[in-house]
Amino acid sequence: MNITTPSKITVRKIPSSRINEVNFNSLQFGSVFSDHMFSCDFKEGRWQDPIIQPFGPLTISPAAKVFHYGQAVFEGMKAYKDDNGGIFLFRPEQNFKRINKSAKRMAIPEFPKELFFDALNEILQLDSEWIKPGIGNSLYIRPFVIATQAGVSASPSTEYKFMILLSPAQAYYTGDVKVVFSEHYSRAADGGVGFAKAAGNYGAQFYPTNLAREKGFQQVIWTDSHSHEFLEEAGTMNIFFRINDTLITAPTSDRILDGVTRKSVLKLAETLNIPTEVRRVKVSEIKEAHKNGTLMEIFGAGTAAVISPISTFGHGEKIFDLPVLEESYATMFKSKLMDIQYNRSEDPFGWRYRVL
Amino acid sequence: MNITTPSKITVRKIPSSRINEVNFNSLQFGSVFSDHMFSCDFKEGRWQDPIIQPFGPLTISPAAKVFHYGQAVFEGMKAYKDDNGGIFLFRPEQNFKRINKSAKRMAIPEFPKELFFDALNEILQLDSEWIKPGIGNSLYIRPFVIATQAGVSASPSTEYKFMILLSPAQAYYTGDVKVVFSEHYSRAADGGVGFAKAAGNYGAQFYPTNLAREKGFQQVIWTDSHSHEFLEEAGTMNIFFRINDTLITAPTSDRILDGVTRKSVLKLAETLNIPTEVRRVKVSEIKEAHKNGTLMEIFGAGTAAVISPISTFGHGEKIFDLPVLEESYATMFKSKLMDIQYNRSEDPFGWRYRVL
Repeated sequence: MNITTPSKITVRKIPSSRINEVNFNSLQFGSVFSDHMFSCDFKEGRWQDPIIQPFGPLTISPAAKVFHYGQAVFEGMKAYKDDNGGIFLFRPEQNFKRINKSAKRMAIPEFPKELFFDALNEILQLDSEWIKPGIGNSLYIRPFVIATQAGVSASPSTEYKFMILLSPAQAYYTGDVKVVFSEHYSRAADGGVGFAKAAGNYGAQFYPTNLAREKGFQQVIWTDSHSHEFLEEAGTMNIFFRINDTLITAPTSDRILDGVTRKSVLKLAETLNIPTEVRRVKVSEIKEAHKNGTLMEIFGAGTAAVISPISTFGHGEKIFDLPVLEESYATMFKSKLMDIQYNRSEDPFGWRYRVL
Repeated sequence: MNITTPSKITVRKIPSSRINEVNFNSLQFGSVFSDHMFSCDFKEGRWQDPIIQPFGPLTISPAAKVFHYGQAVFEGMKAYKDDNGGIFLFRPEQNFKRINKSAKRMAIPEFPKELFFDALNEILQLDSEWIKPGIGNSLYIRPFVIATQAGVSASPSTEYKFMILLSPAQAYYTGDVKVVFSEHYSRAADGGVGFAKAAGNYGAQFYPTNLAREKGFQQVIWTDSHSHEFLEEAGTMNIFFRINDTLITAPTSDRILDGVTRKSVLKLAETLNIPTEVRRVKVSEIKEAHKNGTLMEIFGAGTAAVISPISTFGHGEKIFDLPVLEESYATMFKSKLMDIQYNRSEDPFGWRYRVL
């Protein structure tokens, strides 16, 4: 049965939910999808035919420009459920702004704000059972846009598809996270697309990350492509350094993603009177701080992992272990962020967005 | 009717050809496709199920990693027909090597050589009517690989699809080509994926190229991301400069594609005793040579356009027109390359590969 809602989104419900087939206690991140998906097509110069329908395969030309020219952008968000069944997003307007910023850089038409939020609200209400309460549980939300026009000439597509997929999630990273500071490979160039959540930024990291994994590291901390002297970001996380009690992170730029978790940590730090420095961070400075015992913590910040404490970093052939702190910034920020996300604390900054 | 050939490629022929629907005199590059396509899947750790079947849409998960992480590479080749119906490729082993070089950098499994050539031979023989004789006519060949595993976690796909599409082509560029030297935007970083034909390298150029088009230029000549002082490549072409009688082009690197046409021009120049310099080329040097009248030509070299003479370049707010030469290197190289490609001349370097 097709229903058209007041927001003009056609809704075609799944005949019966697949939710009972899913073991919510052993979820692999990003591999299971909820009952429904949202899509909307750009053609003839406008976004049209918004629809929520059962999750299922696309039919798409093998000549679609996304396959050949990587014209694709995405976002990562999460929906959280409190113990009363309330459903919340965390600063979704930031994701909305960023997907359009990414889209612009990739010559993709911007998506309308009202439809973005209508789509989120409607699909989350429809698939609300897929959001489990309890700290750590969430429904990962993947809005994305792909170029769908068939054509193997290197020019912008005239047709696009905007979609939202939903994937139930537990915690993203587990155990000690060991990272290596990149000395040869790079993630982004000045004047390039590093600030955007452009699909190709991620695939380009897989090979150097595989090389790092062979050496026992889970992630690469990317450095500037010119000198490899400055620490930038981890590819799926922004990076924070704590020297003594000061929290330091690199400024956003056209190479570094303007992370929502990153800016939330900075805001929290400000209200907690934690000294912060947003400035370029030298590899040599971090090694020196480790040597003299003032490097207290390194942690990543991103939607998937929220806060990801780093136990060890490598540079060259050397390995540097970080102290285990009883009261770390990482744990404190993670706890404060999740309390806001799960509606367990006040929300002084207006970051929560209630869906239901 | 399915046929399995000695090369193990299953062939499922189109019931009746679409060729009579196509006007070969008004082809838009890359928009029309031949009757058949080749595909082969990587799963369970090996390439399997090679098939030639009617050109048509794919059925693919919206969570396929190619859509989210741009894990995709491609090649561009052409098939040429001589006046006796002979069909030829130009240095296809170079494309084969490069697609695997690109694949490796994008953490994509390499494709087997024998199957690559069997697939090319079989599909070109099947769709040989789509190759029209006559200088300028060709069948553009697009081998590509996309990551097909469903999963929105940023890690390499476990499943891939290798495909070959065929698109009949006339000349790629027409009229005067005006280019602008990039001063802000960049195509590639040291330690990045610029040397690879990775899908995301192309989509990332669309926005700055659109900005250039608004100012009357067709293409951007990318400069190094650090200083924007050195000229690198045009994104779909390598770039050659002629100062007096010397031919100059930038060295290949991890930022610059190792173009087949580029290396063929260098080889031809060598045998013609044209002095060549493969070295970094400064913007200031080219402007100076223009000023003192020694800059004779700039041209692009790539599979789609073969050789593309440039009439004008822009830098900053200034426009620099190039002289119109009666005997240009561009025309001479294009003619010599096409004579080899179309089997109209000797082939002293063994560059022609006969399909039929």
